[in-house]
Amino acid sequence: MLESGATLAPVDVAYATYGALDADGGNAVLVCHALTGDANAADWWSTLVGPGRPVDTDRFYVICANLLGGCQGTTGPSSIDPATGEPYGLRFPLFTVRDLNAVHRALLRHLGVERLHTAIGGSLGGMQALQWALDAPEEIERACVVCASARLSAQNIGFSKVARAAILGDPQFAAGAPNGMAVARMMAHITYLSEEGMRRKFDRARRERGGPMTMDSDFEVEHYLDHQAAIFLARFDALTYLYLSRVMDYFEPFEEPIARAPSTDVLLISFDTDWRFGSEHSQYIADELRALGGSPRHVEISSPWGHDSFLMDVPAYHAAVAELLRGPRPTP
Amino acid sequence: MLESGATLAPVDVAYATYGALDADGGNAVLVCHALTGDANAADWWSTLVGPGRPVDTDRFYVICANLLGGCQGTTGPSSIDPATGEPYGLRFPLFTVRDLNAVHRALLRHLGVERLHTAIGGSLGGMQALQWALDAPEEIERACVVCASARLSAQNIGFSKVARAAILGDPQFAAGAPNGMAVARMMAHITYLSEEGMRRKFDRARRERGGPMTMDSDFEVEHYLDHQAAIFLARFDALTYLYLSRVMDYFEPFEEPIARAPSTDVLLISFDTDWRFGSEHSQYIADELRALGGSPRHVEISSPWGHDSFLMDVPAYHAAVAELLRGPRPTP
Repeated sequence: MLESGATLAPVDVAYATYGALDADGGNAVLVCHALTGDANAADWWSTLVGPGRPVDTDRFYVICANLLGGCQGTTGPSSIDPATGEPYGLRFPLFTVRDLNAVHRALLRHLGVERLHTAIGGSLGGMQALQWALDAPEEIERACVVCASARLSAQNIGFSKVARAAILGDPQFAAGAPNGMAVARMMAHITYLSEEGMRRKFDRARRERGGPMTMDSDFEVEHYLDHQAAIFLARFDALTYLYLSRVMDYFEPFEEPIARAPSTDVLLISFDTDWRFGSEHSQYIADELRALGGSPRHVEISSPWGHDSFLMDVPAYHAAVAELLRGPRPTP
Repeated sequence: MLESGATLAPVDVAYATYGALDADGGNAVLVCHALTGDANAADWWSTLVGPGRPVDTDRFYVICANLLGGCQGTTGPSSIDPATGEPYGLRFPLFTVRDLNAVHRALLRHLGVERLHTAIGGSLGGMQALQWALDAPEEIERACVVCASARLSAQNIGFSKVARAAILGDPQFAAGAPNGMAVARMMAHITYLSEEGMRRKFDRARRERGGPMTMDSDFEVEHYLDHQAAIFLARFDALTYLYLSRVMDYFEPFEEPIARAPSTDVLLISFDTDWRFGSEHSQYIADELRALGGSPRHVEISSPWGHDSFLMDVPAYHAAVAELLRGPRPTP
C-alpha cells in the first residue's frame, strides 16, 4: 500500500550487504542511492564505502537496496504487472520518498535489523535518510544527508521537467526513448558539475584544433557528454528516470505536520560549488529541524566538483562522515 | 563567399528601418538581434528601441536585419537552394560571426550607410557588434555589447550541445524536430533566467495545491515552460537554431591576430544575475580590448532577470545605453 492509496504487490527488492550485523544489532548502516544508482554501494560509492573507508565495512553491517521504481532489480515501472502480464509502464503508480523508505524498512526487518546506527545518502539518497529521521527517529540514530534538498526550487523542477519532456516526447518512447534519455542525461550531467570544474577539465579544447567548423561533436566537452549519454543508455531505464525524478520534485517533508521530536543526530553536508542543491538547501533543512527542536549540524565543504562532489574523494567531507559514524549514540 | 571558402548566392535579407538617415549620414544605428530574434527590433526590443527610447527612432536611423542563417526572411538553411530546388537543410554551409556582418554590411551599403553611429546587440547580437569593431573600427563609432561572450565556456558549449542533440536526434527531425525544439527551448529558457528570478515568479506553486501527484505538468514553472515551447515552435525553425547556436560556440575573436587598433568606443554591459554570459565574459572582452590599446568601459548592472535582463526595462541599463548614444564621436 503506497501513500497515495494505490497498492503494489508483490515487490521484489534487489540489495547488497557488506560486513556482519553485531550481536546487539547496533552496527547497521543503510546507504541510500541517488537517482541513477543501484544496490552495489561499494562499487558506485567506493570512495566512501569499503574496508577502512569512512563507512567501514569491517566495522559496520552495510545495507544498500535498489529503490522502488528502480531498474536494477527492485520492482519498478519496467517490471511485469502480474495483473496484466505486461510491463507496468506509465500505469505504475506514483510514489513518495516515504514509500521508498517503507520498502527499505521491510527489507531491514527481513534482515533482522531493528534500528539503524546510521542512514546515509546523497541527493535523493539524502532525502530518504531525512524522511526516515522525521518519520521514525527511534529507528535511526544518525542521518548523514549529503547535498540533498527538502524543497526543490523552481529552477530544479524546471530542469527536471525538461528531462521528462525529452523522454516522454521522444517518438521512440516505447522503445526506451533513446534520444530523450541521452538528452536528459547530458543536461543533468551539466547540472551535476560546476562551471569551474568543467572549465578546468575541458575549457574549449577541441579534438582537432584549427579544423573546420562542424555540426558534429568537436569540442572535448561534447565528446564527453556523448560518452556519458552512451554509457547511461546502456544501463538505465527511461521509466525509472521519470518516476524517480518526479519523487524529488514533490518532496517537501516540512510542509506536512511533524509530530515527533527529531531526536536523530542529523549531519547535513553541502558543497560550495554545487548549484543543483547548493548550501541554501541544506541550510533550509537545518533551520526546519532546529525549529522542531532538533540539533542538526550543517557543514559546507569546499570542492570543485559541484553536485557530483558527494561521489568524490574529498578529504574534509570524508572526515566529517567518519566523525559522525564514530560519534556516540545520541540520547533521545 | 563565406569565411570558410564556401559560397552562397543569392542571399535575401529581411530588414526593418526606423527613422531617417541624416544628410551627413551620421545617425545610423545598427541593432543586432540574438539567437531567436528577427528584424523587427521595435517589437522584440520595444523597451529600448522606439521614439523617446534610449535608441531613439526620432533621432536615429535604426536598422535591424534578420541574420544570415535565419528563418525570418533572410536566407538560411530552410531556404530553397537554387542549385537543387530543395531546401538546403544541413547542406547549408557553416558560417561565422564575420559572415553575419558581411551580409549586414552589404545591406548598409544598399541603404547608403557608410558608417555607423552605433552598433548595439545583446548576446549573439553583442558578438556581432564586437566583431565589427575589431574588423572595421573606422566603420563603427560606438559599440554597445550587452551580455555577450567572446569565449563560450565549457558549460555554455555543453548546454548548446544538448540543445543540438535534442534537435538532431529527434526521430522527427525532418519534420522540424518538434519535441527536440521544445526541449531545447525549455532548457535554454531556464539558462536565460536566474534561479532567484524563477523563485520569485513561480517558487513551488502548483495548479492544484494538494492535488494528486502526476507525471503531467503540475507546477506552474512546468506550465510556463510548456507555453514557452509552444509559442517558440510556432515561430522558429530547428535548422536556424542549430546554425546560430553553433556560430556562438566557435566565436573566439581574440584568438585570431588583430591588426587594427580598436578605436571604436566600446561599452560592455553585463548583469549580475546572468549565469549564461555573466560579468566575467564581459570583463574578459574588456581586458582583451585594453591589451590591444582600446579604452572599453564595462558596467555591471544589478537586475533579477538573469541573461534575459537585456530585453527588460532596467533603468540603470537603459541610462548607460542612452549615455553612450549621446556621447561625442570618439576620435580615432
